[in-house]
Amino acid sequence: MDSIKVFSPGSITNLSCGYDILGVCLQNRGDEITVKKIDKKEIIINSNDDYNISEDINKNVAGIAAQALLKNTKTKFGFEIEIKKGIKPGSGIGSSAASSAGTVFAINQLLDSPFSQMDLIKFSMEGEKFVSGTYHADNVAPIILGGITLVRSIDEIDVIKLPSPKSLEVIIIRPNIEIKTSDSRKVVKNKIKIEKMVQQSANLGSFVSSLYTEDYGLMSKSVVDVIVEPNRRILIPEFDKIKEISKEDGAIAVGISGSGPSIFSLSNNSTVSEKILKSVTNHYEKLNISYDGFISKVNSTGIKIIESN
Amino acid sequence: MDSIKVFSPGSITNLSCGYDILGVCLQNRGDEITVKKIDKKEIIINSNDDYNISEDINKNVAGIAAQALLKNTKTKFGFEIEIKKGIKPGSGIGSSAASSAGTVFAINQLLDSPFSQMDLIKFSMEGEKFVSGTYHADNVAPIILGGITLVRSIDEIDVIKLPSPKSLEVIIIRPNIEIKTSDSRKVVKNKIKIEKMVQQSANLGSFVSSLYTEDYGLMSKSVVDVIVEPNRRILIPEFDKIKEISKEDGAIAVGISGSGPSIFSLSNNSTVSEKILKSVTNHYEKLNISYDGFISKVNSTGIKIIESN
Repeated sequence: MDSIKVFSPGSITNLSCGYDILGVCLQNRGDEITVKKIDKKEIIINSNDDYNISEDINKNVAGIAAQALLKNTKTKFGFEIEIKKGIKPGSGIGSSAASSAGTVFAINQLLDSPFSQMDLIKFSMEGEKFVSGTYHADNVAPIILGGITLVRSIDEIDVIKLPSPKSLEVIIIRPNIEIKTSDSRKVVKNKIKIEKMVQQSANLGSFVSSLYTEDYGLMSKSVVDVIVEPNRRILIPEFDKIKEISKEDGAIAVGISGSGPSIFSLSNNSTVSEKILKSVTNHYEKLNISYDGFISKVNSTGIKIIESN
Repeated sequence: MDSIKVFSPGSITNLSCGYDILGVCLQNRGDEITVKKIDKKEIIINSNDDYNISEDINKNVAGIAAQALLKNTKTKFGFEIEIKKGIKPGSGIGSSAASSAGTVFAINQLLDSPFSQMDLIKFSMEGEKFVSGTYHADNVAPIILGGITLVRSIDEIDVIKLPSPKSLEVIIIRPNIEIKTSDSRKVVKNKIKIEKMVQQSANLGSFVSSLYTEDYGLMSKSVVDVIVEPNRRILIPEFDKIKEISKEDGAIAVGISGSGPSIFSLSNNSTVSEKILKSVTNHYEKLNISYDGFISKVNSTGIKIIESN
């Protein structure tokens, strides 16, 4: 194989109760990444987007992740990476993760897959570190493994794939502002009261249980954030109102996707999902807030190969 | 029914990764509680133990829990409660919880069960509050529901019963010293670094998953305490050594049971359990530390009615 084109999807993370732990792979929105072997032993990036993303391999997450991978193997050739961004940076649905994970996934394919999924997560995390200032795997893990994932450890990478109830849907509304992950992480407190920790982690445990038992009532009570959302919500236009509207329309839960500004709702009914999407987009339209809104099932596959030669 | 005798078992809590959240109902060790209707509208406690437990209904957890229950109903009679303690107070295997939960369970039976399990947990928690200074349901919940439980919320009581893998066994070794829950709670820090919180709650989420999938490898990596154990271990004689010995013998995990001094190990193999018990009791014997040691399967039933008339 000399050339491969992949679709590297968006992802939502935290899911209110699992800060830096939970992630969900989306079906819609994502980057198209083409990687070709080239004779010269170098990495070239062609970024095809409206966002002025650097093509410098030391300033582009895909280049950084690719270099992390290539440190661990020997090749006689180089790679030309073309990235057609489908996710706006700073949107809270894993734009950087899609580029870095998609790139290392594609390179691994071109090398006949010497690396495990956990290795690919590790390499991709170098991109996340560059863009956010800290290592975290909650976006890259679900893209690479597919489905809903729980990052148990990033010291020695350990990620579990949790069950994805088939009827579960995600409704995303993204107001058209940018929040840098690094800025959004600043509003998270360094120290947490033990009572809050107990409350939040009990919810995380319950959420995991609700995925196995498909208990949407329990899921609704569990997908609650008493630690990060109270501070981050102020960064997002109309967050409280969007939450209220979505709940009224029957959302199982509503929260901030990743570091925002995207807001996710969960639903287990397509009609309800459509209703929520309509209500929240109407609300932004009334206030002249530009947005992107869509519904996605959980993508159980993750990164998809579009073509290879 | 005018009289009932119940066996109210011990329980281990926290399970390293679920402070104030997880609990496991034991088969061995427990209080025998007999409750009889009496004509006079009062509560009488006869405590049958070597521990100088007060018979004052305002200073005995059973009396406090019974009063909490009776505030919510009208009766024309009173109750005589006889408690034969089978669990030493301050042992870390839920001595107070056994007395308070067993008592309200028995009274509820005598009243033809007007109260739900969640109600009984709530009443029992008044006993826990009295003895430890704070409300917590992690001991009373598994005794009342049986099995392995997760306390999602104590504001509005919400407890989930998790799966109990059939082969799971608990090995308990209790050095013969008393640690008051209220003292043991003092060594727990009020504020936790967010990184530690993420690490611990990721482990809790993984532990819940491991119960559904019976993945003992994951359970072993998940039943780890980076928050409470580092401070509490110093209260328990030879904790580190007991942990080391048990792990060498094949324990899935080792930690402090509740607020200590009991130490639990998990195993999924009876031969391994016996080996662990022998090694840890030998170790205490060599050092002339008196102890109580036993092996228990998970008790999926909880409080058991021994006889009723």
